[in-house]
Amino acid sequence: MKGGKGRDLECQKTKVGKESNGNSVEKEIPSCCLKANASAPEDEAKCHSTVVSGWFSECHGLFFNNPMWPGEAHSIKVEKILYKEKSEFQEVLVFESSAYGKVLVLDGIVQLTDKDECAYQEMIAHLPLCSILSPKTVLVVGGGDGGVLREVCRHSSVNHVDICEIDEMVIDVSRKFFPELAVGFEDPRVHLHVGDAIDFLQCAPEGKYDAIIVDSSDPVGPAQELVEKPFFKTIAKALRPGGVLCNMAESMWLHTHLIQDMISICQETFSGSVRYAWASVPTYPSGVIGFILCSTEGPPVDFVNPINPIEKVEGAAKHRRELRFYNSQMHKAAFALPAFLKWEVSCTARLHDVGPH
Amino acid sequence: MKGGKGRDLECQKTKVGKESNGNSVEKEIPSCCLKANASAPEDEAKCHSTVVSGWFSECHGLFFNNPMWPGEAHSIKVEKILYKEKSEFQEVLVFESSAYGKVLVLDGIVQLTDKDECAYQEMIAHLPLCSILSPKTVLVVGGGDGGVLREVCRHSSVNHVDICEIDEMVIDVSRKFFPELAVGFEDPRVHLHVGDAIDFLQCAPEGKYDAIIVDSSDPVGPAQELVEKPFFKTIAKALRPGGVLCNMAESMWLHTHLIQDMISICQETFSGSVRYAWASVPTYPSGVIGFILCSTEGPPVDFVNPINPIEKVEGAAKHRRELRFYNSQMHKAAFALPAFLKWEVSCTARLHDVGPH
Repeated sequence: MKGGKGRDLECQKTKVGKESNGNSVEKEIPSCCLKANASAPEDEAKCHSTVVSGWFSECHGLFFNNPMWPGEAHSIKVEKILYKEKSEFQEVLVFESSAYGKVLVLDGIVQLTDKDECAYQEMIAHLPLCSILSPKTVLVVGGGDGGVLREVCRHSSVNHVDICEIDEMVIDVSRKFFPELAVGFEDPRVHLHVGDAIDFLQCAPEGKYDAIIVDSSDPVGPAQELVEKPFFKTIAKALRPGGVLCNMAESMWLHTHLIQDMISICQETFSGSVRYAWASVPTYPSGVIGFILCSTEGPPVDFVNPINPIEKVEGAAKHRRELRFYNSQMHKAAFALPAFLKWEVSCTARLHDVGPH
Repeated sequence: MKGGKGRDLECQKTKVGKESNGNSVEKEIPSCCLKANASAPEDEAKCHSTVVSGWFSECHGLFFNNPMWPGEAHSIKVEKILYKEKSEFQEVLVFESSAYGKVLVLDGIVQLTDKDECAYQEMIAHLPLCSILSPKTVLVVGGGDGGVLREVCRHSSVNHVDICEIDEMVIDVSRKFFPELAVGFEDPRVHLHVGDAIDFLQCAPEGKYDAIIVDSSDPVGPAQELVEKPFFKTIAKALRPGGVLCNMAESMWLHTHLIQDMISICQETFSGSVRYAWASVPTYPSGVIGFILCSTEGPPVDFVNPINPIEKVEGAAKHRRELRFYNSQMHKAAFALPAFLKWEVSCTARLHDVGPH
């Protein structure tokens, strides 16, 4: 999933820049940076997971704008609602669909479906782990469904995996309805920590991890803190020299400003490589999801050409279940960026880092 | 666009295979191979381009299944309907949207939007034209909006482009509402033929074209003939030895059986290379569109590694307007296929041709 929750913080709503003459200016804030309830009545803002006439529509129902994706909606036909509860952190919905199998929805946003979860889980795990030799210790932030764990555990070199998920209900729901994902928790190398990832990271020994994978929710409201600089600094500290981070990084078609901001922050924080990659995931808005990959100072990491190709990792292809999406060709291809994205990220990013390979 | 229309033929609804014991068996026909009106009342079947409460939803309205994409719907908020007429062949709708700019819809199916047309037009044109040295004569089948022409004309080596579009209304509508696409018609190298592509191809001199680009609609009903073997044979005949075809080829997430069928037919028809590629297009179902690339007998064509890279074609990057999506990295990346697609096409296809590069 691209879920997992941070703390309930207010979204930064304003940003002030300076013109060349030194006068302060207010930068325009895209609608996806405004909180869902900024202009909606209280009851509408709480209206998650609307199912109308047997169809689920992503966030706020068919006839409201989702603030992350204004002006469009993706709808999935519901065969049967299997679960709907409010946890301490969010609304959790599971339904059976004809088109995508079982669907997990958090606060009205599709996190994963049986049909296309392979693309997200495999890419977010293997992009970082195939970029370093013999990864041993891994931290997963969020990812309470277990899918990323399932993928991390394909790597026979890995001997310790910590996962820090704030919402236990997500774990329980996955164990009940998504056994193909929750299987990740069954591996004896996995250590589950239910709690706040920021607290967890602050207590982590410096340089502990070879790789950290942040499987977070969209950076609006609750998870806002997970795309801010202090969080990335804490991650960098918990990684060994030459260690790698892979962080969910939105849609290149919809959120270039967020991508730009994340790349800037990462380039300030990580003195190794910073790269952007993407994958096709039909049930995410605009049909794609991005990843930002960073490495700390140390042995240089060539993210584009996997030094630890999955095809050569013993037993990886069929561990628990077959690889459905990822392979070394898909790995390399994920770093090819369309022309429009290169322009839009180039004004703040070092182009040679995010650009062509 | 992925539009353009063939003749109004019935869809093939049954397929009969043989079991290993020699008994005949009926193969299951996926819902996307059933015509829209196969099981719906007459008035529902004709209900294209439904706009409800200011939202357009792809084909048959929100609460009907689209036979090509059962169980899901993509909805775009309509700011203003700009045009809605029935031509001799189809219903043509143009509306202004907040999320994607102007949108062209044919028979209820989104063909292109201002925001993401670059991905489709650039890829379908440059994947074939950058795979051969110095393309000179090109045929575009369908593509009445002019976008593919705009892209073909970036190639300074091209001296003659034929386009055969059956529906004049599409051309007129594009000239009025999509000047950035219709600009393709203004090039003096372009020769417009309004009519049936199959008749046109049957009259074309043998070996006339270096490249043929088929910008057709979905192979359900009217355009069915454009994915059948006789059509591909006519194309192969009209290409010079070592000439190339690029044909729109559906979504790898939704229509693997159609892809499989097209690959089989192409491998029987083209004795050169046959390759499958794909690109991200947010407003197409599942957010991707595929292309099948074939070459006739002659000098071998390496589709994956462009021999005629766009970056080296004089004036190409800024001809009429800048390239927004395509570059040589995106070209190579387009041929990386997810694991699931490799399995599903491997049973009928020669795997080494459609597989990894």
